[in-house]
Amino acid sequence: MHHDMDDEIQATISSILTTRTAAAHLHGADFSALWKTTVECVSGGKLLRPRILVGAFDAFCADAQPGLQTRESVLQMAAALEILHFSFLLHDDIIDDDLMRRGEANLMGRLLVEARTSPWPVVVGDELPARRLHWARNAGLLVGDLMLTLAHQLFARVQVDRPSRLRILDLLDATVTETVAGEYCDVSLADGYLGSDPDLVLKMTCMKTAAYTFELPLRLAAVLAGAQRSAEDQLGQVGRRLGVAFQLQDDLRSAFETSNVHGKDDHSDFREGKETALIAYARSTSAWEQLRPLLGTQDFLPSSAPTIQCLLTECGARKFVESKVADQVEAAMQVLMDGDGELPTAVRDFCHEIIGKLDSGAL
Amino acid sequence: MHHDMDDEIQATISSILTTRTAAAHLHGADFSALWKTTVECVSGGKLLRPRILVGAFDAFCADAQPGLQTRESVLQMAAALEILHFSFLLHDDIIDDDLMRRGEANLMGRLLVEARTSPWPVVVGDELPARRLHWARNAGLLVGDLMLTLAHQLFARVQVDRPSRLRILDLLDATVTETVAGEYCDVSLADGYLGSDPDLVLKMTCMKTAAYTFELPLRLAAVLAGAQRSAEDQLGQVGRRLGVAFQLQDDLRSAFETSNVHGKDDHSDFREGKETALIAYARSTSAWEQLRPLLGTQDFLPSSAPTIQCLLTECGARKFVESKVADQVEAAMQVLMDGDGELPTAVRDFCHEIIGKLDSGAL
Repeated sequence: MHHDMDDEIQATISSILTTRTAAAHLHGADFSALWKTTVECVSGGKLLRPRILVGAFDAFCADAQPGLQTRESVLQMAAALEILHFSFLLHDDIIDDDLMRRGEANLMGRLLVEARTSPWPVVVGDELPARRLHWARNAGLLVGDLMLTLAHQLFARVQVDRPSRLRILDLLDATVTETVAGEYCDVSLADGYLGSDPDLVLKMTCMKTAAYTFELPLRLAAVLAGAQRSAEDQLGQVGRRLGVAFQLQDDLRSAFETSNVHGKDDHSDFREGKETALIAYARSTSAWEQLRPLLGTQDFLPSSAPTIQCLLTECGARKFVESKVADQVEAAMQVLMDGDGELPTAVRDFCHEIIGKLDSGAL
Repeated sequence: MHHDMDDEIQATISSILTTRTAAAHLHGADFSALWKTTVECVSGGKLLRPRILVGAFDAFCADAQPGLQTRESVLQMAAALEILHFSFLLHDDIIDDDLMRRGEANLMGRLLVEARTSPWPVVVGDELPARRLHWARNAGLLVGDLMLTLAHQLFARVQVDRPSRLRILDLLDATVTETVAGEYCDVSLADGYLGSDPDLVLKMTCMKTAAYTFELPLRLAAVLAGAQRSAEDQLGQVGRRLGVAFQLQDDLRSAFETSNVHGKDDHSDFREGKETALIAYARSTSAWEQLRPLLGTQDFLPSSAPTIQCLLTECGARKFVESKVADQVEAAMQVLMDGDGELPTAVRDFCHEIIGKLDSGAL
């Protein structure tokens, strides 16, 4: 995945958002300002999903240049994936009452800062901080709706033949539904509506992250490249497994490495008491009694992190999750080998390249 | 708008939702149960938006039977409008922290009732009521995303020629953006980020309600019937004005009539302190000092309603809003007359029929 591709993807996203921001002016200066803040938040992502789509598509076309129109469609859809991802993150942050993401203020956090310097003409006295928070959260919810709408619009307008278009819409539909179902499972676990166990958390991870992060971009690449349905399915199965491995790796990194490696707040999963596969496993062990009071507390102490890490290692949770990562990667490699030679060599190579980056944390 | 049409629309919506609910089973029993509760909430709407679309389309085709495929597309889009409406209501209720709509439990209210009889395996003690509410609200937010997705999917799949499809997508895009901008304005007014005045509230009403309730269905009917763009624009302008008149009438009815006329909770707008055009006008009068403590209080007394009604009448707010309704209806009739005979007579008659029902409250 080379530098030029990142530039192409970023330019496409910027162009789409610039047009939209200009159009927002129609509905007043406040709405326009909301768009500008939103665009600042969308930029700066790692473009993982667009890069998988464009990279896999280019691999399919390694032996034959695609038409310019098709390449443009691929870039539009890559931008749509990033915008869809952003809309999921926004609603996820609202659900979790978060004002930060990866160590920086998220959209709600930024709006809250802006709100502090806005005039707020209506005198509400002591209520003002609560009003500001209410306003910022609801503005965030609405921006999530706008971004979800924009993603759907970009998918609906892709210029391909009708069967491909319907297949793409089917994939988008199934994936959004699965992602929301995964998020609903996450909400139900977080609030205690469902009891936690490692299998359920793994299933939730697969639905909430793997489907739209890896399976969808790989399947879209196959459809856009005109591949057979059986090749699309094979690639989709590879993607699903790599997606689970990716999320579990991310959980491990967040738990056991420092922020200069994983880019998140140090120990944010511990502080938030996030129900990762690590934690779900640890619940069933004797270490849980010691772990429980240390996790998800308002007054989380960074100095307790080494104790938590030690307990998660000793109780076998770390090994359990590491073995699940290895299982998923191995299963993905098996699917790659089992196909009847349907996937072009360049596409297999691309998948192996992803696996290499997954292992080294370079994705 | 006859009985048969309602049946057709209802059957289309039911068929779409039944297919979806069956597919939801893929993602587990809990997700499937969430869909079932959702479907109960979607049913029972007044189908105002679908009826405007189908009614106007049929009026366009009064002299020539449309193809079966086109009529089916119209019904699909009518269903999409009702589902889009439901998604807006859901997120609106989350923004306002409402558990009721029109006197009945909304989706969050229903989920909360269900949550009380669910096992909740994780012991959380005193936190349980707050957890249940958090869970129900976030489930509602996610269902809103699913419904917004479903509406977009139905629009994206409509089987018409490419120029019509792109025009339909443009209309959907512009309308969702305007509705969200209107909702953002409403949020900003409710939280005090923006100061209220009658003009701003009228503009907000137009953006938040008129655009998707009247203008969009009328424009879609024109596009689907193959009308010229100028005819679509003329009808769109009529729709925008009727939409504002409709919302203002609804505000008047909610303020001055009992629930057996308007179907809402008695005095719910007073209880919630909703920023209607009536209230925005009253703020600028000497009656405001007496009105303010009576509105939007936790312990609203139904016995204070006659006093509020009397004050709103005496201060001129009622007359102000009634005159705005009359202005909008007159402007709509003017647009209908001014057109160069582009709109077929049956379509003009249909618009006059809507105006009649608007006056009598029968819409």
